[in-house]
Amino acid sequence: MDSTRQLNSVFYPKSVAVVGASTNPEKVGYLCLTNILDAGFQGKVYPVNPTLSEAFGLKVFPSIRAIPGDVDIALIVVPPEAAVAAVADCAVKGVKGAILITSGFKEVGTATGQDLQQKLSDIARGNGLHVIGPNTLGLVNPAINLNATFDTALNAIKSGNVAVAAQSGGMCHFIVQSLDKHNVGVSQAMGLGNRSGLDFDEVVAYWAQNEATRVIVLYMEGLEQPRRLMDTVRKMVPRKPVLVLKGGRSEQANRVTLSHTGALAGKDELYRAAFKQSGIMAVDNTTELVDKAKALSLQAPPQGNRIAVISAMGGPSIVMCDRCYRMGLLLSQFAPATWQRLRRAISPLTSVDNPVDVAWGVGDYAASREILQAVIGDEGVDGVTISLDGSNLSLPFVRALLEIAPDCGKPVTVSLGLERGSADVQPALLEEKGIPTYPVPERAVTGLAGLVRYGEIRRRFS
Amino acid sequence: MDSTRQLNSVFYPKSVAVVGASTNPEKVGYLCLTNILDAGFQGKVYPVNPTLSEAFGLKVFPSIRAIPGDVDIALIVVPPEAAVAAVADCAVKGVKGAILITSGFKEVGTATGQDLQQKLSDIARGNGLHVIGPNTLGLVNPAINLNATFDTALNAIKSGNVAVAAQSGGMCHFIVQSLDKHNVGVSQAMGLGNRSGLDFDEVVAYWAQNEATRVIVLYMEGLEQPRRLMDTVRKMVPRKPVLVLKGGRSEQANRVTLSHTGALAGKDELYRAAFKQSGIMAVDNTTELVDKAKALSLQAPPQGNRIAVISAMGGPSIVMCDRCYRMGLLLSQFAPATWQRLRRAISPLTSVDNPVDVAWGVGDYAASREILQAVIGDEGVDGVTISLDGSNLSLPFVRALLEIAPDCGKPVTVSLGLERGSADVQPALLEEKGIPTYPVPERAVTGLAGLVRYGEIRRRFS
Repeated sequence: MDSTRQLNSVFYPKSVAVVGASTNPEKVGYLCLTNILDAGFQGKVYPVNPTLSEAFGLKVFPSIRAIPGDVDIALIVVPPEAAVAAVADCAVKGVKGAILITSGFKEVGTATGQDLQQKLSDIARGNGLHVIGPNTLGLVNPAINLNATFDTALNAIKSGNVAVAAQSGGMCHFIVQSLDKHNVGVSQAMGLGNRSGLDFDEVVAYWAQNEATRVIVLYMEGLEQPRRLMDTVRKMVPRKPVLVLKGGRSEQANRVTLSHTGALAGKDELYRAAFKQSGIMAVDNTTELVDKAKALSLQAPPQGNRIAVISAMGGPSIVMCDRCYRMGLLLSQFAPATWQRLRRAISPLTSVDNPVDVAWGVGDYAASREILQAVIGDEGVDGVTISLDGSNLSLPFVRALLEIAPDCGKPVTVSLGLERGSADVQPALLEEKGIPTYPVPERAVTGLAGLVRYGEIRRRFS
Repeated sequence: MDSTRQLNSVFYPKSVAVVGASTNPEKVGYLCLTNILDAGFQGKVYPVNPTLSEAFGLKVFPSIRAIPGDVDIALIVVPPEAAVAAVADCAVKGVKGAILITSGFKEVGTATGQDLQQKLSDIARGNGLHVIGPNTLGLVNPAINLNATFDTALNAIKSGNVAVAAQSGGMCHFIVQSLDKHNVGVSQAMGLGNRSGLDFDEVVAYWAQNEATRVIVLYMEGLEQPRRLMDTVRKMVPRKPVLVLKGGRSEQANRVTLSHTGALAGKDELYRAAFKQSGIMAVDNTTELVDKAKALSLQAPPQGNRIAVISAMGGPSIVMCDRCYRMGLLLSQFAPATWQRLRRAISPLTSVDNPVDVAWGVGDYAASREILQAVIGDEGVDGVTISLDGSNLSLPFVRALLEIAPDCGKPVTVSLGLERGSADVQPALLEEKGIPTYPVPERAVTGLAGLVRYGEIRRRFS
């Protein structure tokens, strides 16, 4: 069975064992078991614990091997030595994925920790068993209501098309939660922890062919063999974008990653060069990560970097232009015909230019329609970003936008303001039609810049 | 009467006239009058409109001059020619401030617009009258329930200690709303519009001595006489920080500012140099503006740039370290005694270092207290930033923090995560005690970096 087919059984398991399952609410094994049950997983659930016979109405097994049916994944939360033994049992049993929540391996920096982690690798190798972790958060797949982590907050996250893999459990939690709060769903998310077995290149290769995944997001602290990931991404990136947030970019933070997930973060400039060469989109911070992932999850990339800015107020549009400049986007020069159409549609008190200041016109459906058609139809415009910040009267503009934008063949991003729109204009109204919204004007530009950058990557690597 | 004393009557008026007041909800003059009434202003309100006799139970006057009592400020919303006449009336009447909402002056780029704006300047000069605008949003002072703008969203903003002046009405709205959504109150906010009379240097000089103001925030597109502002700030900046967001930093956006508020944005590098020389803190974007203003509104600046990072999860602390590096903050080297105290208080599974990974310890009050006292008490630590992102169990840690941080003499900023804390730990709980909170780990560092930078400025300019 090849790695990708086998990973399908890990990400879409039909049966889950919890080794170290507990009925004591203070134990991680309690959280793991109850999260699987509470999130509503419909497959088979097998608690494993030699000191229990029953938990939450389920029969408890003394070991993995004692389970009668097939086991696709095993979540392991027992101490390090017992965890190694459980992984050996998984290999015998034919389990596809052993997810080791347990910490106390390479990341503690002792010879014992190193040895134990080496044993995990040895067991996995040649047994067709994927070892995930150790020192990991686990795995979620909201499409099948699977929360195979100790993180109760992930029980009810939105299902969507963004896949997340993170070396750090905390960052996996944080990124998934951030996407969810911005109305972006995930296809699957996985903490990779110390990566004794499963590594970034394999999950990227899996997601490259996973139909539920459109965007791949990675939080990475360090790689031993960056070339494996680079080669994988170079081949698949024309089909799906890969965003990376690299932690440990300073010398000081670098030192810390070693004790965090047992990996040296390495020279930032080397990583940046490697990312660029292979079509990986590096982001600077968690906000940029969410903003670009959101745009890429909803829209196709444009043909170029010439942008039209439309706004309900002058100031925010200037702030948007500044962000365009900083992100390498050009302001479109409108064709004379566009200019004439805009001059007729916009109040004579307001000058016509790019950025297009619609001003009170956001309350006028016909004028909004005309402005949007003129701007989006201009051949010199590759993409559009819109600020409705500060306007409480923009429903007519938004109605026109919902008619025109979804089929226009050019990406459109919108800032609704921190108030997140008025009572009539909520983010979901636009996002259901594939138009990403943002709380701040600059962030709508960042989203669009992510699409522009991915368009460049796709043209270069196709 | 000097400018500062006279501006006190503008910012704290006892009486307000609205020239162009209307009972037609589609008119700006309706919004201006109803906002003053709805926000709950307790002073005298005089609607002015020759075609009305009564509005909302108030007597309407045919002109400014027909008003019997004193008028401190007049909000003017009639067309440009009538607005110039109203300003002349204000001068005769002894009004302290004429706020011209009306647009159609220099920003439209016509000779007529230029001429009309010149007339405004001529009338104001020598009459002891402050002309604010034209083409402005107006003025708010939540401490006296004054919303002298057409922006209904500003009726109920939080009163606080951040003063805001913006060349753009849209940005004035946006910044004030952003501060409010982040639980930061404003002392006063004013749109300066085309700055035919009142300019940035005068409002900064006023706020330098205004007791309600602790932090000054400016959104600026262009200055004709930057030296006036520089000289003013250089003198007052040891007492209060001045944050500036400069709009129009690219050539393209620059062109647009001319039609927006009639000012050329000018070369970005010249502005940056001028800001640096005079102790003005330039920020890159609206989020950074809010984050730094929030920290400065609540905390005093530290003695240096050596930072301790404390977190409930490893990943977010590494992201914080990366942001520290980018913002010129150093990670503290702990003293041996600190190291020993931390080693005793922190789980042996977690390594002790800076960043300090408290892990499950956030649920242990005694351990949290010991960790905080050790770190804050270390002489090599100038400031502390904390990530509680991803933790739902941090109330014991927060209890310890609320006891120790407020009187410790060092600034502390906290990221609570996008979920904005758990049910028990809300931003207000910390902010009432002067500890600013943020939704993302990087932004807590940005806030702290604002305090560090202001500390440097204060030492340099004192």
